[in-house]
Amino acid sequence: MTAGAPAGFYGLVEGELEELRRRLHDVGRGAHPTFAAAAMHLFATPGKLLRPTLVFLSARFGAAGAGGMTLDLAESLELVHTASLVHDDIVDRAALRRNVPTVNAVWDQDVALIVGDYLFAKAYALAAVLPKPEVIAMVAQTVFALCDGELTEISAPARMPNESEYLERIELKTASLYAACCQGAAILADAEPEHVAALGAYGTNIGLAFQITDDVLDLVGDEGDLGKEVGRDLAEAMPTLPMIYAVADMDGDRRELSRRIVAPDKSPGEVRELLAAIRASGGIERARERARGFHDAAVEALGRLPERPERDALRDVADFVLARER
Amino acid sequence: MTAGAPAGFYGLVEGELEELRRRLHDVGRGAHPTFAAAAMHLFATPGKLLRPTLVFLSARFGAAGAGGMTLDLAESLELVHTASLVHDDIVDRAALRRNVPTVNAVWDQDVALIVGDYLFAKAYALAAVLPKPEVIAMVAQTVFALCDGELTEISAPARMPNESEYLERIELKTASLYAACCQGAAILADAEPEHVAALGAYGTNIGLAFQITDDVLDLVGDEGDLGKEVGRDLAEAMPTLPMIYAVADMDGDRRELSRRIVAPDKSPGEVRELLAAIRASGGIERARERARGFHDAAVEALGRLPERPERDALRDVADFVLARER
Repeated sequence: MTAGAPAGFYGLVEGELEELRRRLHDVGRGAHPTFAAAAMHLFATPGKLLRPTLVFLSARFGAAGAGGMTLDLAESLELVHTASLVHDDIVDRAALRRNVPTVNAVWDQDVALIVGDYLFAKAYALAAVLPKPEVIAMVAQTVFALCDGELTEISAPARMPNESEYLERIELKTASLYAACCQGAAILADAEPEHVAALGAYGTNIGLAFQITDDVLDLVGDEGDLGKEVGRDLAEAMPTLPMIYAVADMDGDRRELSRRIVAPDKSPGEVRELLAAIRASGGIERARERARGFHDAAVEALGRLPERPERDALRDVADFVLARER
Repeated sequence: MTAGAPAGFYGLVEGELEELRRRLHDVGRGAHPTFAAAAMHLFATPGKLLRPTLVFLSARFGAAGAGGMTLDLAESLELVHTASLVHDDIVDRAALRRNVPTVNAVWDQDVALIVGDYLFAKAYALAAVLPKPEVIAMVAQTVFALCDGELTEISAPARMPNESEYLERIELKTASLYAACCQGAAILADAEPEHVAALGAYGTNIGLAFQITDDVLDLVGDEGDLGKEVGRDLAEAMPTLPMIYAVADMDGDRRELSRRIVAPDKSPGEVRELLAAIRASGGIERARERARGFHDAAVEALGRLPERPERDALRDVADFVLARER
């Protein structure tokens, strides 16, 4: 495990990541000043760039290798991701994302709406020049999945979903994009069909592991930690896998706990009580195990790829996704 | 002029329009039920379909003629248009559009946001399969233009624009899409470069004529007419060309009239008074003349195309755009 050195897997693709950061920094150049300012704001701190890292590593398994068009795909999918976050933050009325004020908070929701549309359009414009129509179509398919996931989220009745409903939602909202990064890059680089399939399976599985881990991290840790927000999903009445397991595991009144979890407008005290109840259950550990299962499936898929440093790096990404603490 | 028989120009492309209506009707099939219902609602009454008509007529000037891919382009651009209206209605907090309740009114603004994203993604997915990358890129460029126009609109200071600022805005928000319909179809059908250019110029000019006429129609006519809303642009403090001319033409205090036009939250009485002042000025007639100028430029561009029934139909579309009464 490289949990202690998460930056390890970046090494092989540092040049490409550097170029991507430059491009993201310039996304708004020449555009409407409001969009330019919002893009600057969004990409001032580009984050972990896990998805582009997957694009660059996956492209190395193709005969064509990584080239300028791999950068176009990486930028396109990163813009799809960013656009969907900008629109999600409108729907969630979120003022902060990873401690940075959202576009709807800095400007307003109308500006955020158009900025998101603009980012989607930039993403498609980049995808449009890719030489493989199936990869262009994949970018649009990924947006369908994100929209389906978001519609499922906002039109879900206020009740606990079961495990498979939860998994379906996170496959749409998170894993589809991870899969597109890995599979799209492999197709673009002319990888063998069985390697494309292996990378697709790897992407889906680490996407699922990533989201479950994210949902666990929302329930553990200390409010006192720098930049750490705890219990946001509870505050927003968004049921996640550890909560589903917590309810299933409990001896007492399951219906009552479910009802409290999905209730809107909770007081901070109620959020704290629910956090304590969920932490006291086996739900969090069971969810971590489920994430580990997807991690293991991802690693297994890597076994169908040729042995090379990029494969080790992908394995390190999988380990990091599971072991990360924020 | 065929103003008395606006349906005339549809005749040549009725088969394609019929197929397009079928496709639009099915846009939501198999998708998330909320999206499917919203798509049904949006395409239950598909409207004038002027833009697709331009696509089908323009494609006839190419060696390849109209085929399945022309339908893909027509559907793609009609979806871009619809998506941008759905998002504009959120920004405008509009409850009705052409007398039909908006998606944000029937559902809510969160659903409308995702439905718009979905429609954009459908539009790009259709464009992605087109065999010419420059046409795919054109679809994305059109969305940039729409976003730029909308950002200009929402971040404009509350003052009267001058004529060229107004024209720049409507070129972005309306004419770019008309130009993409004509030019994109011609490129797709392998038309000669000079015919592509002529159709592009035609599209831009009738787009400008269309929007100026729209802005005039908002200021004339009778509230009593079935389905007619008058003075919406005044109520929304959206300065248009007839207002700009009305201010320029007046003898009295221009600054005072400008201030009243761009003032937010007008009473119905104030809207009526402003309507009367603008109608009494030469602004409306001058705007109609400006629209006629763009109409004439569009017709002139048609002169660079070979003589055939489709050219006559495009001329009829130009006449209709100018002469229509709603």
